[in-house]
Amino acid sequence: MKNIGEFGLIDRISTHFTAPAGVTGIGDDCAVIPQKSGLDTLISTDLLVEGRHFLLEDVSPRDLGWKSAAENISDIAAMGGRPESAFLSIALPGSLDAGWMDGFIEGFASLCKRYGVQLLGGDTSLSPDRLFINITVTGSCPHGSAKLRRTACPGDIICVTGTLGDSACGLQLILERRGAAKRPCATQPLPEKDAEYLIERHYRPIPRVEEGIRLSSNPAVHAMMDVSDGIASDLRHILDASRCGAAVNLPELPLSESLQRFCLSRGTDPYSPAVEGGEDYELLFTIKPGADAGVPCTPVGTITEGKGGIEWLGGSKKDYKGFTHF
Amino acid sequence: MKNIGEFGLIDRISTHFTAPAGVTGIGDDCAVIPQKSGLDTLISTDLLVEGRHFLLEDVSPRDLGWKSAAENISDIAAMGGRPESAFLSIALPGSLDAGWMDGFIEGFASLCKRYGVQLLGGDTSLSPDRLFINITVTGSCPHGSAKLRRTACPGDIICVTGTLGDSACGLQLILERRGAAKRPCATQPLPEKDAEYLIERHYRPIPRVEEGIRLSSNPAVHAMMDVSDGIASDLRHILDASRCGAAVNLPELPLSESLQRFCLSRGTDPYSPAVEGGEDYELLFTIKPGADAGVPCTPVGTITEGKGGIEWLGGSKKDYKGFTHF
Repeated sequence: MKNIGEFGLIDRISTHFTAPAGVTGIGDDCAVIPQKSGLDTLISTDLLVEGRHFLLEDVSPRDLGWKSAAENISDIAAMGGRPESAFLSIALPGSLDAGWMDGFIEGFASLCKRYGVQLLGGDTSLSPDRLFINITVTGSCPHGSAKLRRTACPGDIICVTGTLGDSACGLQLILERRGAAKRPCATQPLPEKDAEYLIERHYRPIPRVEEGIRLSSNPAVHAMMDVSDGIASDLRHILDASRCGAAVNLPELPLSESLQRFCLSRGTDPYSPAVEGGEDYELLFTIKPGADAGVPCTPVGTITEGKGGIEWLGGSKKDYKGFTHF
Repeated sequence: MKNIGEFGLIDRISTHFTAPAGVTGIGDDCAVIPQKSGLDTLISTDLLVEGRHFLLEDVSPRDLGWKSAAENISDIAAMGGRPESAFLSIALPGSLDAGWMDGFIEGFASLCKRYGVQLLGGDTSLSPDRLFINITVTGSCPHGSAKLRRTACPGDIICVTGTLGDSACGLQLILERRGAAKRPCATQPLPEKDAEYLIERHYRPIPRVEEGIRLSSNPAVHAMMDVSDGIASDLRHILDASRCGAAVNLPELPLSESLQRFCLSRGTDPYSPAVEGGEDYELLFTIKPGADAGVPCTPVGTITEGKGGIEWLGGSKKDYKGFTHF
């Protein structure tokens, strides 16, 4: 779409609609709809377009099925909810056979089963050429406990679960191996177990469902989302929604040993994949200083007063950009 | 997808999942999920692929937006539910500009507003070439009142709301006008107001929400769905799910005067668009003989014992086929 980014587009769309009182609509990881039962229903939807979000020649059907489910379940985890049901729409090009679809569904179902998510519906169609996938996931959480993007406070500590950037390095390896990305002059070879780990993190991400549920019951946790486009992009969503700034200490970013060896072997900046690389599906949250998060996590910075964007401290680069959808 | 139809595909998918007790999952117009509040939540999802479900050169963005909303809201109407919220995923090719998107959303929002449906979320992406739209709609109905496909009984009268086949004739006119379909030797010209009516029925269908709600509170109504692929296809879904057969009296089919004049002008069988043409979004339901449906409708046949398929009575053709997605 010419001259209009994703968020310009979303703004244009949202002017036509007003969420009813008490309902969180457009602008967070999920919609949050209060129910009379005392639970809030969470709903999220995500689309995946061949050639934009994945390349068929790079991914096995099982891995694509797993990853499609993980991305969507992660949106429920990002609110601190328990995922419940999924709806799968898939437009299949004629070139894919039933065996491909069986593999996709096996991967999809194996991640869903891990979290008790049932596929309750969907839609299927032939596609004239490309594969399109859209998944809607529902979940629930106790009323009012969903963690939103707009509730970060100046002074909050910014934390992340797990390690960042592994998925981006995995993708880089996949692209190098089929010759689609240039491999920089290696200063040292990369052990195969590191390559395997990084590629696994790219193809088989684990959404942080249990951590999200624990964080949602912690009143010291203020804002939360998942890391899907890289924290350079995702943290900005929290800052925009909360009207705050942030300072991130690059040397505090949690980096796996495999990522460190990968970046060393290629002579590249290890902070770039960690803050610009997407698809880690870790949780990014802000918490009152001094409070215990109650889950394994790493503090990486502080929320600041004013809408000053992100200050990147302790590295040589002063600006980073995450993935954008347009 | 080679050698596998839509329903073969759905069977393959559904073997991996089991809907929890009390939940209606794959196989009806919507999933039906009981809530503690005494209401059941209804969820449906539908995808629309450029080149498969519509052609960009044939449809204005406003009409496409309206129709996308109508199709999905109709799935809630098909269960007798009240539609509540919508989630829109759209992958936009770079050739479409912001003005196109504004038109689409205007059409989409104008139908949603009619039924109090709020857009609560979605996803947007660039698409390398084709436009891809996926909509998820939620709704609700009193617990246990959703009308399913599997509850038709032998002896039931088969009824439809409104008139059938108008949308298919409208599409035929659209294709004739841009030279994409052959116009048969006309025996008489078609008045412009008939053409306008049929094209309007194609582009601006009205889902039968109020009728559906009234029918859902009527215990004499047994099975229900909406007419999206033509009753030759849709009635078969009710028969397969209910393990029954049916006899349909073709001369009883409700045909608009415009459709009759259109078919007369082209010398074609008026029953074909009425039973094979999709996208009318009327309601198709079965009701106990002698009972009052409580909404304007036309009886068109009877549910019979045994899985004998559909017997078409009173016409010259003995078999009809609806739209198939593969």
